[in-house]
Amino acid sequence: MAALINIEAVGIKDIKLPVRIREKDGGLQDTVATVSMQARMPGAYRESCVIVFTQALNKYMDEMSVTIFSTLLEEVRRALQAESASIVMSFPYFIEKKAPVTDTPSLMEYNCTFTGSVASGVEGEEFILSVLVPVTTLCPCSKEISAVGAHNQRAEVSLNVKFSTFIWVEELIDMIEQSASCPVYALLKRPDEKYVTEQAYNNPMFVEDVVRKVAVNALAHPDITWFSAGVESFESIHKHSAYAYVDSEDIRWKGQSAETRDCSQA
Amino acid sequence: MAALINIEAVGIKDIKLPVRIREKDGGLQDTVATVSMQARMPGAYRESCVIVFTQALNKYMDEMSVTIFSTLLEEVRRALQAESASIVMSFPYFIEKKAPVTDTPSLMEYNCTFTGSVASGVEGEEFILSVLVPVTTLCPCSKEISAVGAHNQRAEVSLNVKFSTFIWVEELIDMIEQSASCPVYALLKRPDEKYVTEQAYNNPMFVEDVVRKVAVNALAHPDITWFSAGVESFESIHKHSAYAYVDSEDIRWKGQSAETRDCSQA
Amino acid sequence: MAALINIEAVGIKDIKLPVRIREKDGGLQDTVATVSMQARMPGAYRESCVIVFTQALNKYMDEMSVTIFSTLLEEVRRALQAESASIVMSFPYFIEKKAPVTDTPSLMEYNCTFTGSVASGVEGEEFILSVLVPVTTLCPCSKEISAVGAHNQRAEVSLNVKFSTFIWVEELIDMIEQSASCPVYALLKRPDEKYVTEQAYNNPMFVEDVVRKVAVNALAHPDITWFSAGVESFESIHKHSAYAYVDSEDIRWKGQSAETRDCSQA
Amino acid sequence: MAALINIEAVGIKDIKLPVRIREKDGGLQDTVATVSMQARMPGAYRESCVIVFTQALNKYMDEMSVTIFSTLLEEVRRALQAESASIVMSFPYFIEKKAPVTDTPSLMEYNCTFTGSVASGVEGEEFILSVLVPVTTLCPCSKEISAVGAHNQRAEVSLNVKFSTFIWVEELIDMIEQSASCPVYALLKRPDEKYVTEQAYNNPMFVEDVVRKVAVNALAHPDITWFSAGVESFESIHKHSAYAYVDSEDIRWKGQSAETRDCSQA
Repeated sequence: MAALINIEAVGIKDIKLPVRIREKDGGLQDTVATVSMQARMPGAYRESCVIVFTQALNKYMDEMSVTIFSTLLEEVRRALQAESASIVMSFPYFIEKKAPVTDTPSLMEYNCTFTGSVASGVEGEEFILSVLVPVTTLCPCSKEISAVGAHNQRAEVSLNVKFSTFIWVEELIDMIEQSASCPVYALLKRPDEKYVTEQAYNNPMFVEDVVRKVAVNALAHPDITWFSAGVESFESIHKHSAYAYVDSEDIRWKGQSAETRDCSQA
Repeated sequence: MAALINIEAVGIKDIKLPVRIREKDGGLQDTVATVSMQARMPGAYRESCVIVFTQALNKYMDEMSVTIFSTLLEEVRRALQAESASIVMSFPYFIEKKAPVTDTPSLMEYNCTFTGSVASGVEGEEFILSVLVPVTTLCPCSKEISAVGAHNQRAEVSLNVKFSTFIWVEELIDMIEQSASCPVYALLKRPDEKYVTEQAYNNPMFVEDVVRKVAVNALAHPDITWFSAGVESFESIHKHSAYAYVDSEDIRWKGQSAETRDCSQA
Repeated sequence: MAALINIEAVGIKDIKLPVRIREKDGGLQDTVATVSMQARMPGAYRESCVIVFTQALNKYMDEMSVTIFSTLLEEVRRALQAESASIVMSFPYFIEKKAPVTDTPSLMEYNCTFTGSVASGVEGEEFILSVLVPVTTLCPCSKEISAVGAHNQRAEVSLNVKFSTFIWVEELIDMIEQSASCPVYALLKRPDEKYVTEQAYNNPMFVEDVVRKVAVNALAHPDITWFSAGVESFESIHKHSAYAYVDSEDIRWKGQSAETRDCSQA
Repeated sequence: MAALINIEAVGIKDIKLPVRIREKDGGLQDTVATVSMQARMPGAYRESCVIVFTQALNKYMDEMSVTIFSTLLEEVRRALQAESASIVMSFPYFIEKKAPVTDTPSLMEYNCTFTGSVASGVEGEEFILSVLVPVTTLCPCSKEISAVGAHNQRAEVSLNVKFSTFIWVEELIDMIEQSASCPVYALLKRPDEKYVTEQAYNNPMFVEDVVRKVAVNALAHPDITWFSAGVESFESIHKHSAYAYVDSEDIRWKGQSAETRDCSQA
């Protein structure tokens, strides 16, 4: 036992803090984050590392941003003489969104996660940007076989990306909302409700269609260097969810189109 | 401070146990329950009451039923010299359900809760039977105003009842599934999916329509002496839920129909 | 069936919004609330009531306070011609707390809930203030019977109050933190950790002791007109929780002290 | 877009089913599982794959075991002409455990997860066995610096393993319960409570000590070919958790002991 060393990650989990996030349009948004931090340390471990984490978080919470992340992490890594240090910070992020017909404004909430890490001897930091976006999916099969209507439901798209140049969450959210049967809104008046009902009906998509469209959009983005995407659809006709997932490594290229949607069996 | 006595409820919360539940057709179903128990005791309280609770639960878990409840509770109440004792037991309950057209069988899961209590000097026990049933709701407003389609979604109906003669959960579930735009299934083949899509479209209901229909059915049941009902609809066009609630005490009678559904404003 | 009217509560559930809460010291705190609203309406119900709710929330979220609540609710109630209207708003609330020995400051998060309702023909509003406060409990029985140590754990105290004169959440949190074996902190240095370890050891309390002390403090507060309190202790020696509950109506007075703690049996 | 193919995973998520699990002593245990299944399919995707999943699950749920997994998965994979198919099945598992002094029996619940996958052209299946085991941790630092007592709390150890020869969950649970300050029980009488209090006090461990001991035990097991382990401790003096993680790839060997525990700073 004396002869082996685990290089464990040690840290704190699920501490809540008020943070201030920079918005795409230059403003600062106050929100509340749930934060976990870890450091990988060989040899002498000390529970008191939690003090280092908590103090660093309290010091920087007023100006949380991608730039701050690497400063905070490098500070923590050095204080602990750690091989690496990482942080995961999730928070609700609010964007004013206009209803599609009446332009009535309301606030939509999206869950965002920033994941950062720095390692000893490695220049810069690793950063993953994640968003969770609610959308509507309308079942192509149900539409095709039914005389009237089509079952539809709320779904959640999660997208995680690495990038060469910083991308705003606002961009990722846009990309996702254009990849579903219809976006979801906080406030819709009657003309808006008519619009979204018809948009979804005219744009039927399985979870696998949504995840593929998100993938196509992510692949087309010049700054995205890696991504993974998942779609969970809270089926209105079942108690369980339908789910689809794809990441950059699952992508293959071929000489011809292979998408032949088929709901003829079963 | 010496002069007051709190009559506190003291107990254990969220212990998991395998239990065996009697089914309507006479069978016994093995499932897993989450159980909380409390006793109200003036004067000398002892944390060791948790031992009494845990032992009683371990003793009776093989034959959990309404009849066992009062025996178990009375035993606990006496052991603790308590004014009253109560138990809340929630568990997934499975019913084989046939798809509406192809009759394909599959298991549907419903969450059920038994709540019982006994009190010193009171004959018999209080018992509340609760079920949580997933259903489909299809929006009447969306259907009326849209050229094609109508937004629909999964919703959850919760019904709690007291009764004069024992009612099976199977009956309550039936009552609820007939009160929504459409029931939800675990397995649907193509002809079934067509059927439920059209049934929901032809049967549009707001959450308040569903809750009212559940109330009307509960009022009409000869053995139900009290009820409360709630409906939460996971709106497919919003990120938040629509919700409606009614209980026996909210019911009033009038000489004429007052239901004039109206989605003309806004 | 035409002859009955349900007076249903209809509303929206679990919408997230940024809100600004007034602090005891006069400042304004930015946080994120989860809000549900309901109105009780006989007769003609309309799903479009969700628009009224959502618009009212978007209008007032910048200055959420007890005073705003009644304005917002009365506005909603009138717009819907409802018998009554109610709102439940939960949010994390942050307070800078100093470590007990080193005075090191850090932010502690407490979950707070404001519940308000207005009714037609009733002056003013009903208001319930709720806080959820993490504390430490140390088991008196374990301490008494063991040669060394005593099991202890995190517990959560929930307190709900009505009042004649407004009470700040800061006051309720203080009241609760003084009622447990020891308060909980976000950041403790070594001298602080020694202090809280010893404080808990010297102040052993069962869940029923904590709930009774909270009750005694609430009864002694001149402005509290009703309360209910619960304590859930995440036992370190079990997988389940110990739980105790008391509310104003459970309190009785007597000529002599009745508390004889006893862990001699079992 | 015509030129790329995503190899997406498509499936169902979070369906609940009663299942029967084989126990180490040869018995069969009835419990309730939450199941997700996925298949990776290039080209023609069909939402109707959910029918294939659901039917397969309904067919095999009476005899769920490691052997059944590969049959079920291969059946699904072939029916969908998929590259691979996988299943994740989580369930509460009950083991009768005797109190350490009085031998009083009671049922302890552990959460287990079976993860299996089969791939086209690959012999056999991949299988990961996971358990989540509650334990007690007692802080070495707190004990060292305090005149009396030491803070302790419930913690959760998660262990995931791959193996060359099948390992029972009972074995993994044993391995974990021997790696913490003390195991957790469902029912403890007074002599047992004294015993566990003292055992924890005499066996102080940080989360990193627990995770390292689990790792050492997993490394020593002849049949474990890969593992990952995490420990989350619900600190009794904080609102957040302490956390440690290690997996097989983090292990390094060295000529001397490097563990110098130190809580002298801060």
